[in-house]
Amino acid sequence: MIEQQDFLPKYYQISLEIMDMIRTGELQPGARIPSENDIIKNFQVSNTTARKVLHEIEQAGWVTKIKGKGTFVKSSGIINRSATKILSFTKNMRQAGLVPKTILLDKQIIRSGKQTTVSGRTYSIKNPVCKITRLRVADETAMMIEERYISMEFCPAIEKENLENSLYDIYRDLYNLQITQIDQSLQAIIIPDELSTHFKTDQAIPGFRVQGVTFCGRELVLEIEDSIYRGDRYQFTVQATP
Amino acid sequence: MIEQQDFLPKYYQISLEIMDMIRTGELQPGARIPSENDIIKNFQVSNTTARKVLHEIEQAGWVTKIKGKGTFVKSSGIINRSATKILSFTKNMRQAGLVPKTILLDKQIIRSGKQTTVSGRTYSIKNPVCKITRLRVADETAMMIEERYISMEFCPAIEKENLENSLYDIYRDLYNLQITQIDQSLQAIIIPDELSTHFKTDQAIPGFRVQGVTFCGRELVLEIEDSIYRGDRYQFTVQATP
Repeated sequence: MIEQQDFLPKYYQISLEIMDMIRTGELQPGARIPSENDIIKNFQVSNTTARKVLHEIEQAGWVTKIKGKGTFVKSSGIINRSATKILSFTKNMRQAGLVPKTILLDKQIIRSGKQTTVSGRTYSIKNPVCKITRLRVADETAMMIEERYISMEFCPAIEKENLENSLYDIYRDLYNLQITQIDQSLQAIIIPDELSTHFKTDQAIPGFRVQGVTFCGRELVLEIEDSIYRGDRYQFTVQATP
Repeated sequence: MIEQQDFLPKYYQISLEIMDMIRTGELQPGARIPSENDIIKNFQVSNTTARKVLHEIEQAGWVTKIKGKGTFVKSSGIINRSATKILSFTKNMRQAGLVPKTILLDKQIIRSGKQTTVSGRTYSIKNPVCKITRLRVADETAMMIEERYISMEFCPAIEKENLENSLYDIYRDLYNLQITQIDQSLQAIIIPDELSTHFKTDQAIPGFRVQGVTFCGRELVLEIEDSIYRGDRYQFTVQATP
């Protein structure tokens, strides 16, 4: 069923293959994934390897084991997010058939501004910024934690708005701002334990740290972002050229 | 020195800040990073917190502790890779001032072809593929492990070439092929223990799993890629639009 791949350990290859079936929707939420016996038979491996396969998939957080019944696909799989075309969280989740929700965790005004570095270039907002921390939830699952530092030069009194709404809508409708570009860097991280509690996982999970700078005109920094996306639920897609 | 950020634990904020100094080159390789006492003084935290900061940075693999001397920046920091403009590994490393090397770990011909899914679309090479596994090294540090499945329809007898050379050069010079587009998905993962030995780390490190499809014309799949980049040394950068 799978090709001979000498390099990766067998249990890991098989787990990747089954996780790919979940990711692509071949195994839908609620579907039973192959049992230990199925794996032994289909992939011609030992029961130790089969058990490691199931353990690996469970660890990745995509399935639930129900005693005496089997192992079932937990979520609707992974969210694809285009790296180059920014879609609002709300739209992105709706496209994936999920119900989005935003929870404002914190809001404060930082008079000293904010500075960040993306791909080796440093950007700063010298005026006061409104810093907000939001938890982005889909179908009751926390998907990302977002910190945004919004220039109060461009958005005075933004702290008085309902910041659980779309910021893009607020920028456009209230401040008449046009976003021209967003420069981002993506890092792969292991989500620190303290944040795992927000994500309600009891083991280490991978994540993306996304740092970004949003412009509303040439060299005009509208906001700086520093967010953590859970890596077991998100993947970024991109079209590249050589 | 840092802004009040109530949300993230203090030790984690401080460690991010110091890691940012390494990433941006403010702290160069060989430089001593702030000591426990420096951290206590500069950030006004307890020695427990300061110790946790140093532990966090060490865990991330960017520094070496030398007994009685201090903690020093280990590597030349992180490699920036554009997500949209593909540069060869060799060029990317040279740009970063590192000496690249490629080690061919495995080579085989898979008669049944290869299939993959990127952003929900499935691509396949139906003809035999030459599968190669390569370790990409920079300054003696393994940076990524790469699996590439090359269509033998477009590249007959490619297995006879020196596959430690640039594949892009081989495609262009030997087979007269023009790469038109590369579709990729980036996942954040925790690198499995078995691969960690290649990366010579003794703790769990994050990584990017990059799956891609390379075209040499409309719908003509030249190769399929499945690679793992170490997340403590790589970050992807991207320019996005709303």
